[in-house]
Amino acid sequence: MDIDELLGALSLQEDRTVEVLCRGLQYEVLRAGFSKVVIGLSGGLDSALSAYLARRSFGPENLILVSMPYRSSRPDSLAHAQLVADRLGCELRIHEISQQIDAYFARDSRADRIRRGNKMARERMSILYDLSMAEKALVLGTSNKSELLLGYSTLFGDSASAVNPLGDLYKTQVRQLARHLEIPRDILDKPPSADLWEGQTDESDLGFSYEHVDVLLYHLVDRRQRRRQLLSLGFEPEFVDRVRTLVRASQYKRKLPVIIKISGRTVDKDFLYPRDWSG
Amino acid sequence: MDIDELLGALSLQEDRTVEVLCRGLQYEVLRAGFSKVVIGLSGGLDSALSAYLARRSFGPENLILVSMPYRSSRPDSLAHAQLVADRLGCELRIHEISQQIDAYFARDSRADRIRRGNKMARERMSILYDLSMAEKALVLGTSNKSELLLGYSTLFGDSASAVNPLGDLYKTQVRQLARHLEIPRDILDKPPSADLWEGQTDESDLGFSYEHVDVLLYHLVDRRQRRRQLLSLGFEPEFVDRVRTLVRASQYKRKLPVIIKISGRTVDKDFLYPRDWSG
Repeated sequence: MDIDELLGALSLQEDRTVEVLCRGLQYEVLRAGFSKVVIGLSGGLDSALSAYLARRSFGPENLILVSMPYRSSRPDSLAHAQLVADRLGCELRIHEISQQIDAYFARDSRADRIRRGNKMARERMSILYDLSMAEKALVLGTSNKSELLLGYSTLFGDSASAVNPLGDLYKTQVRQLARHLEIPRDILDKPPSADLWEGQTDESDLGFSYEHVDVLLYHLVDRRQRRRQLLSLGFEPEFVDRVRTLVRASQYKRKLPVIIKISGRTVDKDFLYPRDWSG
Repeated sequence: MDIDELLGALSLQEDRTVEVLCRGLQYEVLRAGFSKVVIGLSGGLDSALSAYLARRSFGPENLILVSMPYRSSRPDSLAHAQLVADRLGCELRIHEISQQIDAYFARDSRADRIRRGNKMARERMSILYDLSMAEKALVLGTSNKSELLLGYSTLFGDSASAVNPLGDLYKTQVRQLARHLEIPRDILDKPPSADLWEGQTDESDLGFSYEHVDVLLYHLVDRRQRRRQLLSLGFEPEFVDRVRTLVRASQYKRKLPVIIKISGRTVDKDFLYPRDWSG
Protein backbone atom coordinates (compact mmCIF):
# COMPACT_ATOMS: atom_id res chain seq x y z
CA MET A 1 0.00 0.00 0.00
CA ASP A 2 1.10 3.57 -0.64
CA ILE A 3 0.45 5.15 2.74
CA ASP A 4 1.38 8.65 1.57
CA GLU A 5 -1.18 8.53 -1.20
CA LEU A 6 -3.86 7.27 1.22
CA LEU A 7 -2.95 9.98 3.74
CA GLY A 8 -3.89 12.55 1.10
CA ALA A 9 -7.57 12.03 1.93
CA LEU A 10 -6.92 13.23 5.50
CA SER A 11 -5.20 16.41 4.40
CA LEU A 12 -6.97 19.54 5.65
CA GLN A 13 -7.29 23.02 4.21
CA GLU A 14 -5.17 24.53 6.90
CA ASP A 15 -6.30 28.16 7.08
CA ARG A 16 -9.94 27.24 6.84
CA THR A 17 -9.70 24.46 9.45
CA VAL A 18 -7.89 26.71 11.93
CA GLU A 19 -10.53 29.36 11.40
CA VAL A 20 -13.39 26.86 11.92
CA LEU A 21 -11.77 25.46 15.07
CA CYS A 22 -11.24 28.94 16.53
CA ARG A 23 -14.81 30.06 15.77
CA GLY A 24 -16.11 26.82 17.28
CA LEU A 25 -14.04 27.36 20.41
CA GLN A 26 -15.19 30.97 20.75
CA TYR A 27 -18.80 29.93 20.26
CA GLU A 28 -18.75 27.10 22.81
CA VAL A 29 -16.81 29.04 25.45
CA LEU A 30 -18.98 32.13 25.08
CA ARG A 31 -22.25 30.27 25.26
CA ALA A 32 -21.07 28.51 28.41
CA GLY A 33 -20.71 32.01 29.88
CA PHE A 34 -16.89 32.04 30.08
CA SER A 35 -14.19 34.22 28.62
CA LYS A 36 -11.07 32.44 29.90
CA VAL A 37 -9.72 28.95 29.30
CA VAL A 38 -7.17 26.71 31.05
CA ILE A 39 -5.00 24.07 29.36
CA GLY A 40 -2.60 21.51 30.80
CA LEU A 41 0.60 21.57 28.75
CA SER A 42 2.33 18.19 28.69
CA GLY A 43 5.17 19.37 26.48
CA GLY A 44 3.70 17.33 23.63
CA LEU A 45 2.16 18.30 20.33
CA ASP A 46 -1.54 17.92 21.13
CA SER A 47 -1.65 20.25 24.10
CA ALA A 48 0.64 22.67 22.25
CA LEU A 49 -1.86 22.83 19.37
CA SER A 50 -4.77 23.32 21.80
CA ALA A 51 -2.86 26.21 23.34
CA TYR A 52 -2.02 27.79 19.96
CA LEU A 53 -5.69 27.60 18.94
CA ALA A 54 -6.81 29.04 22.29
CA ARG A 55 -4.31 31.90 22.06
CA ARG A 56 -5.70 32.77 18.64
CA SER A 57 -9.29 32.50 19.86
CA PHE A 58 -9.11 34.30 23.20
CA GLY A 59 -5.80 36.20 23.36
CA PRO A 60 -2.92 35.53 25.76
CA GLU A 61 -4.61 37.36 28.63
CA ASN A 62 -7.45 34.82 28.69
CA LEU A 63 -5.28 31.73 28.47
CA ILE A 64 -4.00 29.92 31.57
CA LEU A 65 -1.27 27.37 30.90
CA VAL A 66 -0.23 24.79 33.48
CA SER A 67 2.47 22.16 33.49
CA MET A 68 2.00 19.31 36.00
CA PRO A 69 5.20 17.28 36.04
CA TYR A 70 5.80 14.09 38.03
CA ARG A 71 9.31 13.47 39.30
CA SER A 72 9.97 10.90 36.56
CA SER A 73 8.63 13.10 33.76
CA ARG A 74 11.23 13.82 31.06
CA PRO A 75 12.98 17.14 31.70
CA ASP A 76 12.39 18.17 28.10
CA SER A 77 8.61 17.85 28.68
CA LEU A 78 8.71 20.83 31.01
CA ALA A 79 11.17 22.65 28.74
CA HIS A 80 8.84 22.20 25.75
CA ALA A 81 5.81 23.37 27.77
CA GLN A 82 7.82 26.47 28.68
CA LEU A 83 8.75 26.98 25.04
CA VAL A 84 5.07 26.94 24.04
CA ALA A 85 4.14 29.40 26.80
CA ASP A 86 7.00 31.71 25.76
CA ARG A 87 6.00 31.61 22.11
CA LEU A 88 2.41 32.44 23.06
CA GLY A 89 3.40 35.23 25.46
CA CYS A 90 1.79 33.52 28.46
CA GLU A 91 3.04 32.69 31.90
CA LEU A 92 3.46 28.95 32.58
CA ARG A 93 2.25 27.79 35.97
CA ILE A 94 3.93 24.71 37.36
CA HIS A 95 2.13 22.31 39.72
CA GLU A 96 4.26 19.29 40.65
CA ILE A 97 2.15 16.20 41.28
CA SER A 98 4.85 13.93 42.78
CA GLN A 99 3.81 14.34 46.42
CA GLN A 100 0.17 13.46 45.83
CA ILE A 101 0.96 10.45 43.63
CA ASP A 102 3.66 9.10 45.93
CA ALA A 103 1.49 9.55 49.03
CA TYR A 104 -1.19 7.38 47.45
CA PHE A 105 1.10 4.61 46.19
CA ALA A 106 3.18 4.47 49.40
CA ARG A 107 0.80 1.76 50.63
CA ASP A 108 0.85 -0.22 47.39
CA SER A 109 4.37 -0.31 46.03
CA ARG A 110 3.49 -3.17 43.64
CA ALA A 111 1.17 -0.96 41.60
CA ASP A 112 2.18 -1.23 37.94
CA ARG A 113 2.97 1.64 35.61
CA ILE A 114 -0.46 1.63 34.01
CA ARG A 115 -2.13 2.26 37.38
CA ARG A 116 0.44 4.94 38.22
CA GLY A 117 -0.04 6.57 34.82
CA ASN A 118 -3.82 6.64 35.21
CA LYS A 119 -3.52 8.12 38.71
CA MET A 120 -1.28 10.88 37.30
CA ALA A 121 -3.70 11.63 34.45
CA ARG A 122 -6.59 11.92 36.94
CA GLU A 123 -4.59 14.10 39.32
CA ARG A 124 -3.89 16.44 36.41
CA MET A 125 -7.61 16.57 35.53
CA SER A 126 -8.39 17.34 39.15
CA ILE A 127 -5.89 20.23 39.21
CA LEU A 128 -7.19 21.66 35.92
CA TYR A 129 -10.74 21.59 37.29
CA ASP A 130 -9.62 23.23 40.51
CA LEU A 131 -8.00 26.02 38.49
CA SER A 132 -11.14 26.17 36.36
CA MET A 133 -13.16 27.07 39.44
CA ALA A 134 -10.52 29.34 40.98
CA GLU A 135 -10.01 31.31 37.77
CA LYS A 136 -13.45 31.01 36.15
CA ALA A 137 -11.82 29.41 33.12
CA LEU A 138 -13.13 26.50 31.04
CA VAL A 139 -10.90 23.43 30.77
CA LEU A 140 -9.95 22.83 27.12
CA GLY A 141 -9.30 19.25 26.04
CA THR A 142 -6.22 17.91 24.31
CA SER A 143 -7.33 14.43 23.18
CA ASN A 144 -7.22 13.89 19.43
CA LYS A 145 -9.60 11.71 17.39
CA SER A 146 -7.08 8.88 17.02
CA GLU A 147 -6.70 8.60 20.82
CA LEU A 148 -10.43 8.93 21.46
CA LEU A 149 -11.33 6.22 18.95
CA LEU A 150 -8.61 3.82 20.09
CA GLY A 151 -9.44 4.44 23.79
CA TYR A 152 -5.80 5.47 24.28
CA SER A 153 -6.56 7.79 27.18
CA THR A 154 -7.51 7.72 30.87
CA LEU A 155 -11.26 7.89 31.59
CA PHE A 156 -11.98 10.94 33.80
CA GLY A 157 -8.31 11.84 33.27
CA ASP A 158 -6.82 13.34 30.11
CA SER A 159 -10.05 12.59 28.22
CA ALA A 160 -12.06 14.87 30.56
CA SER A 161 -12.63 18.48 29.57
CA ALA A 162 -15.36 21.04 28.99
CA VAL A 163 -14.56 21.75 25.31
CA ASN A 164 -12.12 19.86 23.14
CA PRO A 165 -10.80 21.55 19.97
CA LEU A 166 -8.80 18.44 18.91
CA GLY A 167 -11.39 15.68 19.30
CA ASP A 168 -12.24 15.65 15.60
CA LEU A 169 -8.63 15.78 14.34
CA TYR A 170 -6.62 12.63 13.69
CA LYS A 171 -3.05 12.73 15.00
CA THR A 172 -1.70 13.23 11.46
CA GLN A 173 -4.06 16.20 11.12
CA VAL A 174 -2.83 17.57 14.46
CA ARG A 175 0.68 17.39 12.98
CA GLN A 176 -0.41 19.14 9.79
CA LEU A 177 -2.00 22.06 11.66
CA ALA A 178 0.90 22.23 14.11
CA ARG A 179 3.35 22.62 11.22
CA HIS A 180 1.11 25.23 9.66
CA LEU A 181 0.99 27.23 12.92
CA GLU A 182 4.79 26.91 13.27
CA ILE A 183 4.82 25.06 16.56
CA PRO A 184 8.52 24.61 17.43
CA ARG A 185 10.35 21.86 15.54
CA ASP A 186 11.58 20.14 18.71
CA ILE A 187 7.99 19.47 19.71
CA LEU A 188 6.91 18.49 16.20
CA ASP A 189 9.76 16.08 15.67
CA LYS A 190 9.81 14.09 18.91
CA PRO A 191 7.96 10.78 19.08
CA PRO A 192 4.47 11.14 20.63
CA SER A 193 4.46 10.00 24.26
CA ALA A 194 2.14 10.23 27.26
CA ASP A 195 5.40 10.47 29.30
CA LEU A 196 3.83 8.43 32.11
CA TRP A 197 6.89 6.18 32.44
CA GLU A 198 10.45 6.19 31.18
CA GLY A 199 10.86 5.44 27.52
CA GLN A 200 7.11 5.29 26.83
CA THR A 201 5.99 6.19 23.32
CA ASP A 202 2.47 6.03 21.91
CA GLU A 203 3.51 4.01 18.90
CA SER A 204 5.33 1.34 20.93
CA ASP A 205 2.34 1.11 23.34
CA LEU A 206 -0.06 0.74 20.45
CA GLY A 207 2.13 -1.39 18.20
CA PHE A 208 1.50 0.64 15.04
CA SER A 209 2.17 4.08 13.58
CA TYR A 210 -0.33 6.96 13.65
CA GLU A 211 -0.04 7.30 9.87
CA HIS A 212 -1.25 3.74 9.37
CA VAL A 213 -3.95 3.75 12.01
CA ASP A 214 -5.26 7.16 10.99
CA VAL A 215 -5.78 6.03 7.42
CA LEU A 216 -7.50 2.89 8.66
CA LEU A 217 -9.68 4.80 11.16
CA TYR A 218 -10.63 7.33 8.50
CA HIS A 219 -11.88 4.59 6.18
CA LEU A 220 -13.49 2.62 9.02
CA VAL A 221 -15.20 5.50 10.86
CA ASP A 222 -15.59 8.46 8.50
CA ARG A 223 -16.08 6.46 5.30
CA ARG A 224 -17.93 3.58 7.06
CA GLN A 225 -16.10 0.96 5.05
CA ARG A 226 -16.47 -2.77 5.70
CA ARG A 227 -13.69 -5.21 6.46
CA ARG A 228 -13.51 -6.38 2.82
CA GLN A 229 -13.02 -2.83 1.57
CA LEU A 230 -10.35 -2.14 4.20
CA LEU A 231 -8.43 -5.24 3.12
CA SER A 232 -8.63 -4.14 -0.49
CA LEU A 233 -6.88 -0.91 0.45
CA GLY A 234 -3.90 -3.06 1.43
CA PHE A 235 -4.30 -3.32 5.20
CA GLU A 236 -3.30 -6.60 6.87
CA PRO A 237 -6.29 -8.53 8.28
CA GLU A 238 -4.70 -8.75 11.76
CA PHE A 239 -4.21 -4.98 11.88
CA VAL A 240 -7.79 -4.30 10.77
CA ASP A 241 -9.19 -6.72 13.35
CA ARG A 242 -7.00 -5.38 16.15
CA VAL A 243 -8.03 -1.78 15.49
CA ARG A 244 -11.73 -2.65 15.14
CA THR A 245 -11.50 -4.44 18.49
CA LEU A 246 -9.78 -1.46 20.14
CA VAL A 247 -12.44 0.95 18.86
CA ARG A 248 -15.34 -1.24 19.95
CA ALA A 249 -13.89 -2.22 23.32
CA SER A 250 -13.28 1.41 24.26
CA GLN A 251 -16.81 2.60 23.50
CA TYR A 252 -17.54 2.80 27.26
CA LYS A 253 -14.96 5.58 27.54
CA ARG A 254 -17.03 7.64 25.10
CA LYS A 255 -20.29 7.26 27.02
CA LEU A 256 -21.76 8.63 30.24
CA PRO A 257 -22.21 6.40 33.31
CA VAL A 258 -25.07 3.89 32.89
CA ILE A 259 -28.05 4.60 35.12
CA ILE A 260 -30.32 1.67 35.98
CA LYS A 261 -33.69 2.90 34.72
CA ILE A 262 -36.79 2.55 36.89
CA SER A 263 -38.75 5.77 36.24
CA GLY A 264 -40.50 7.26 33.25
CA ARG A 265 -37.80 9.84 32.67
CA THR A 266 -34.14 9.16 33.28
CA VAL A 267 -31.00 11.30 32.96
CA ASP A 268 -29.20 10.60 29.64
CA LYS A 269 -31.94 8.21 28.43
CA ASP A 270 -35.12 10.24 27.91
CA PHE A 271 -34.22 13.40 29.82
CA LEU A 272 -32.25 14.94 26.98
CA TYR A 273 -31.49 18.59 26.51
CA PRO A 274 -28.62 20.48 24.91
CA ARG A 275 -25.72 21.39 27.10
CA ASP A 276 -26.59 25.08 26.85
CA TRP A 277 -30.21 24.53 27.76
CA SER A 278 -29.59 27.12 30.48
CA GLY A 279 -28.95 29.78 27.85
CA MET B 1 -49.75 22.29 50.21
CA ASP B 2 -49.92 18.81 51.75
CA ILE B 3 -46.42 17.55 51.06
CA ASP B 4 -47.13 14.07 52.44
CA GLU B 5 -50.00 13.59 50.06
CA LEU B 6 -47.91 14.78 47.12
CA LEU B 7 -45.05 12.49 48.15
CA GLY B 8 -47.41 9.55 47.69
CA ALA B 9 -46.84 9.72 43.93
CA LEU B 10 -43.13 9.01 44.46
CA SER B 11 -43.76 5.95 46.59
CA LEU B 12 -42.25 2.78 45.11
CA GLN B 13 -43.30 -0.85 45.26
CA GLU B 14 -40.32 -1.80 47.36
CA ASP B 15 -39.77 -5.48 46.61
CA ARG B 16 -40.31 -5.04 42.93
CA THR B 17 -38.04 -1.97 42.69
CA VAL B 18 -35.21 -3.69 44.57
CA GLU B 19 -35.57 -6.68 42.27
CA VAL B 20 -35.49 -4.51 39.13
CA LEU B 21 -32.45 -2.58 40.37
CA CYS B 22 -30.57 -5.79 41.19
CA ARG B 23 -31.37 -7.40 37.82
CA GLY B 24 -30.34 -4.20 36.08
CA LEU B 25 -27.05 -4.13 37.98
CA GLN B 26 -26.34 -7.80 37.23
CA TYR B 27 -27.14 -7.24 33.57
CA GLU B 28 -24.96 -4.17 33.13
CA VAL B 29 -22.01 -5.56 35.09
CA LEU B 30 -22.11 -8.91 33.31
CA ARG B 31 -22.32 -7.42 29.85
CA ALA B 32 -19.35 -5.21 30.61
CA GLY B 33 -17.47 -8.47 31.27
CA PHE B 34 -17.06 -8.00 35.03
CA SER B 35 -18.12 -10.01 38.07
CA LYS B 36 -16.89 -7.74 40.88
CA VAL B 37 -17.82 -4.19 41.87
CA VAL B 38 -16.22 -1.49 44.03
CA ILE B 39 -18.09 1.18 46.01
CA GLY B 40 -16.84 4.15 48.00
CA LEU B 41 -18.71 4.23 51.32
CA SER B 42 -19.07 7.76 52.65
CA GLY B 43 -20.98 6.69 55.75
CA GLY B 44 -24.13 8.21 54.28
CA LEU B 45 -27.36 6.70 53.06
CA ASP B 46 -26.80 6.74 49.28
CA SER B 47 -23.57 4.76 49.25
CA ALA B 48 -25.02 2.43 51.91
CA LEU B 49 -27.98 1.65 49.63
CA SER B 50 -25.67 1.10 46.64
CA ALA B 51 -23.71 -1.36 48.75
CA TYR B 52 -26.82 -3.20 49.98
CA LEU B 53 -28.05 -3.55 46.39
CA ALA B 54 -24.62 -4.72 45.22
CA ARG B 55 -24.38 -7.28 48.04
CA ARG B 56 -27.73 -8.69 46.97
CA SER B 57 -26.73 -8.70 43.30
CA PHE B 58 -23.21 -10.08 43.47
CA GLY B 59 -22.64 -11.57 46.95
CA PRO B 60 -20.20 -10.28 49.57
CA GLU B 61 -17.21 -11.98 47.92
CA ASN B 62 -17.61 -9.79 44.82
CA LEU B 63 -18.09 -6.51 46.63
CA ILE B 64 -15.17 -4.23 47.51
CA LEU B 65 -16.00 -1.46 49.98
CA VAL B 66 -13.68 1.48 50.56
CA SER B 67 -13.84 4.41 52.93
CA MET B 68 -11.71 7.43 51.98
CA PRO B 69 -11.74 9.83 54.93
CA TYR B 70 -10.11 13.25 55.02
CA ARG B 71 -8.76 14.43 58.35
CA SER B 72 -11.73 16.75 58.90
CA SER B 73 -14.34 14.10 58.01
CA ARG B 74 -16.77 13.39 60.84
CA PRO B 75 -15.64 10.39 62.90
CA ASP B 76 -19.13 8.91 62.67
CA SER B 77 -18.80 8.84 58.86
CA LEU B 78 -16.13 6.16 59.13
CA ALA B 79 -18.04 4.41 61.93
CA HIS B 80 -21.16 4.26 59.76
CA ALA B 81 -19.20 2.96 56.77
CA GLN B 82 -17.81 0.24 59.04
CA LEU B 83 -21.31 -0.56 60.26
CA VAL B 84 -22.50 -1.06 56.66
CA ALA B 85 -19.52 -3.28 55.84
CA ASP B 86 -20.13 -5.35 59.00
CA ARG B 87 -23.82 -5.79 58.23
CA LEU B 88 -22.96 -6.92 54.70
CA GLY B 89 -20.20 -9.29 55.83
CA CYS B 90 -17.52 -7.44 53.85
CA GLU B 91 -14.14 -6.08 54.78
CA LEU B 92 -13.88 -2.27 54.74
CA ARG B 93 -10.72 -0.92 53.18
CA ILE B 94 -9.63 2.49 54.40
CA HIS B 95 -7.66 4.90 52.20
CA GLU B 96 -6.99 8.24 53.92
CA ILE B 97 -6.83 11.11 51.43
CA SER B 98 -5.48 13.83 53.76
CA GLN B 99 -1.87 13.71 52.55
CA GLN B 100 -2.76 14.07 48.87
CA ILE B 101 -5.24 16.89 49.46
CA ASP B 102 -2.99 18.80 51.84
CA ALA B 103 0.02 18.44 49.53
CA TYR B 104 -1.96 20.10 46.74
CA PHE B 105 -3.40 22.97 48.78
CA ALA B 106 -0.12 23.70 50.61
CA ARG B 107 0.65 26.23 47.85
CA ASP B 108 -2.80 27.83 47.89
CA SER B 109 -3.97 28.18 51.45
CA ARG B 110 -6.72 30.64 50.42
CA ALA B 111 -8.62 27.97 48.52
CA ASP B 112 -12.22 27.95 49.74
CA ARG B 113 -14.13 24.95 51.01
CA ILE B 114 -15.89 24.36 47.70
CA ARG B 115 -12.58 23.94 45.89
CA ARG B 116 -11.30 21.70 48.68
CA GLY B 117 -14.48 19.63 48.62
CA ASN B 118 -14.29 19.17 44.85
CA LYS B 119 -10.64 18.13 45.09
CA MET B 120 -11.59 15.52 47.70
CA ALA B 121 -14.45 14.17 45.58
CA ARG B 122 -12.13 13.81 42.57
CA GLU B 123 -9.38 12.16 44.65
CA ARG B 124 -11.95 9.61 45.79
CA MET B 125 -13.02 8.94 42.18
CA SER B 126 -9.38 8.52 41.24
CA ILE B 127 -8.83 5.96 44.03
CA LEU B 128 -12.00 4.03 43.13
CA TYR B 129 -10.85 3.83 39.50
CA ASP B 130 -7.39 2.70 40.58
CA LEU B 131 -8.97 -0.10 42.64
CA SER B 132 -11.24 -0.85 39.68
CA MET B 133 -8.20 -1.63 37.57
CA ALA B 134 -6.24 -3.37 40.34
CA GLU B 135 -9.17 -5.63 41.28
CA LYS B 136 -10.99 -5.92 37.94
CA ALA B 137 -14.10 -4.50 39.59
CA LEU B 138 -16.57 -2.00 38.10
CA VAL B 139 -17.09 1.27 39.98
CA LEU B 140 -20.72 1.58 41.10
CA GLY B 141 -22.19 5.05 41.42
CA THR B 142 -23.91 6.54 44.44
CA SER B 143 -25.49 9.73 43.02
CA ASN B 144 -29.27 9.85 43.31
CA LYS B 145 -31.66 11.49 40.85
CA SER B 146 -32.22 14.56 43.07
CA GLU B 147 -28.48 15.29 43.16
CA LEU B 148 -27.99 14.59 39.45
CA LEU B 149 -30.86 16.88 38.43
CA LEU B 150 -29.86 19.70 40.77
CA GLY B 151 -26.19 19.40 39.80
CA TYR B 152 -25.38 18.88 43.47
CA SER B 153 -22.26 16.83 42.77
CA THR B 154 -18.68 17.18 41.59
CA LEU B 155 -18.14 16.66 37.85
CA PHE B 156 -15.63 13.81 37.32
CA GLY B 157 -15.84 13.28 41.11
CA ASP B 158 -18.73 11.62 42.95
CA SER B 159 -20.85 11.79 39.79
CA ALA B 160 -18.38 9.57 37.89
CA SER B 161 -18.95 5.81 37.80
CA ALA B 162 -19.38 2.90 35.40
CA VAL B 163 -22.89 1.88 36.51
CA ASN B 164 -25.13 3.80 38.88
CA PRO B 165 -28.01 1.95 40.58
CA LEU B 166 -29.31 5.11 42.27
CA GLY B 167 -29.39 7.58 39.39
CA ASP B 168 -33.11 7.10 38.78
CA LEU B 169 -34.16 7.26 42.46
CA TYR B 170 -35.06 10.53 44.15
CA LYS B 171 -33.57 11.00 47.61
CA THR B 172 -36.94 10.29 49.25
CA GLN B 173 -37.07 7.03 47.27
CA VAL B 174 -33.53 6.18 48.41
CA ARG B 175 -34.83 6.62 51.97
CA GLN B 176 -37.84 4.42 51.30
CA LEU B 177 -35.73 1.56 49.92
CA ALA B 178 -33.13 1.99 52.66
CA ARG B 179 -35.83 1.58 55.32
CA HIS B 180 -37.18 -1.44 53.50
CA LEU B 181 -33.72 -3.07 53.39
CA GLU B 182 -33.21 -2.25 57.08
CA ILE B 183 -30.17 -0.06 56.69
CA PRO B 184 -29.14 0.92 60.26
CA ARG B 185 -31.26 3.64 61.89
CA ASP B 186 -28.25 5.83 62.71
CA ILE B 187 -27.52 6.18 59.01
CA LEU B 188 -31.18 6.61 58.06
CA ASP B 189 -31.84 9.27 60.65
CA LYS B 190 -28.86 11.61 60.25
CA PRO B 191 -29.17 14.68 58.05
CA PRO B 192 -27.78 14.09 54.53
CA SER B 193 -24.31 15.61 54.13
CA ALA B 194 -21.45 15.44 51.67
CA ASP B 195 -19.22 15.81 54.78
CA LEU B 196 -16.77 17.95 52.81
CA TRP B 197 -16.53 20.56 55.56
CA GLU B 198 -17.59 20.85 59.18
CA GLY B 199 -21.28 21.24 59.76
CA GLN B 200 -22.19 20.87 56.07
CA THR B 201 -25.62 19.44 55.29
CA ASP B 202 -27.21 19.03 51.87
CA GLU B 203 -30.38 20.80 52.88
CA SER B 204 -28.58 23.88 54.26
CA ASP B 205 -26.39 24.02 51.12
CA LEU B 206 -29.43 23.78 48.88
CA GLY B 207 -31.80 25.90 50.96
CA PHE B 208 -34.73 23.47 50.78
CA SER B 209 -35.71 19.99 51.91
CA TYR B 210 -35.45 16.87 49.76
CA GLU B 211 -39.15 16.15 50.34
CA HIS B 212 -40.12 19.46 48.77
CA VAL B 213 -37.64 19.43 45.93
CA ASP B 214 -38.31 15.79 45.06
CA VAL B 215 -42.01 16.45 44.67
CA LEU B 216 -41.24 19.48 42.53
CA LEU B 217 -38.65 17.62 40.40
CA TYR B 218 -41.05 14.71 39.92
CA HIS B 219 -43.73 17.02 38.53
CA LEU B 220 -41.23 19.08 36.53
CA VAL B 221 -39.16 16.25 35.03
CA ASP B 222 -41.17 13.02 35.12
CA ARG B 223 -44.59 14.59 34.63
CA ARG B 224 -43.28 17.39 32.36
CA GLN B 225 -45.48 20.00 34.00
CA ARG B 226 -45.29 23.70 33.19
CA ARG B 227 -44.69 26.52 35.63
CA ARG B 228 -48.41 27.31 35.91
CA GLN B 229 -49.23 23.72 36.87
CA LEU B 230 -46.39 23.64 39.42
CA LEU B 231 -47.72 26.81 41.05
CA SER B 232 -51.21 25.31 41.20
CA LEU B 233 -49.79 22.42 43.26
CA GLY B 234 -48.91 25.00 45.90
CA PHE B 235 -45.22 25.63 45.24
CA GLU B 236 -43.89 29.15 45.76
CA PRO B 237 -42.89 30.86 42.48
CA GLU B 238 -39.40 31.65 43.82
CA PHE B 239 -38.81 28.00 44.70
CA VAL B 240 -40.02 26.79 41.30
CA ASP B 241 -37.82 29.29 39.48
CA ARG B 242 -34.76 28.53 41.61
CA VAL B 243 -35.06 24.77 41.03
CA ARG B 244 -35.70 25.16 37.29
CA THR B 245 -32.58 27.33 37.11
CA LEU B 246 -30.50 24.77 39.02
CA VAL B 247 -31.63 21.94 36.74
CA ARG B 248 -30.94 23.87 33.56
CA ALA B 249 -27.66 25.39 34.65
CA SER B 250 -26.26 21.98 35.60
CA GLN B 251 -27.07 20.31 32.29
CA TYR B 252 -23.37 20.44 31.32
CA LYS B 253 -22.62 18.03 34.17
CA ARG B 254 -24.90 15.49 32.52
CA LYS B 255 -23.21 15.69 29.11
CA LEU B 256 -19.93 14.53 27.60
CA PRO B 257 -17.19 17.03 26.70
CA VAL B 258 -18.03 19.11 23.61
CA ILE B 259 -15.90 18.31 20.60
CA ILE B 260 -15.51 21.01 17.96
CA LYS B 261 -16.79 19.28 14.83
CA ILE B 262 -14.85 19.49 11.57
CA SER B 263 -15.22 16.03 10.02
CA GLY B 264 -18.13 14.02 8.65
CA ARG B 265 -18.24 11.74 11.66
CA THR B 266 -17.51 12.89 15.18
CA VAL B 267 -17.42 11.11 18.54
CA ASP B 268 -20.69 11.65 20.47
CA LYS B 269 -22.32 13.54 17.56
CA ASP B 270 -22.75 11.11 14.67
CA PHE B 271 -20.45 8.32 15.79
CA LEU B 272 -22.97 6.72 18.10
CA TYR B 273 -22.97 3.13 19.28
CA PRO B 274 -24.18 1.44 22.45
CA ARG B 275 -21.75 1.11 25.29
CA ASP B 276 -21.62 -2.67 24.84
CA TRP B 277 -20.98 -2.44 21.13
CA SER B 278 -17.94 -4.63 21.84
CA GLY B 279 -20.24 -7.50 22.89
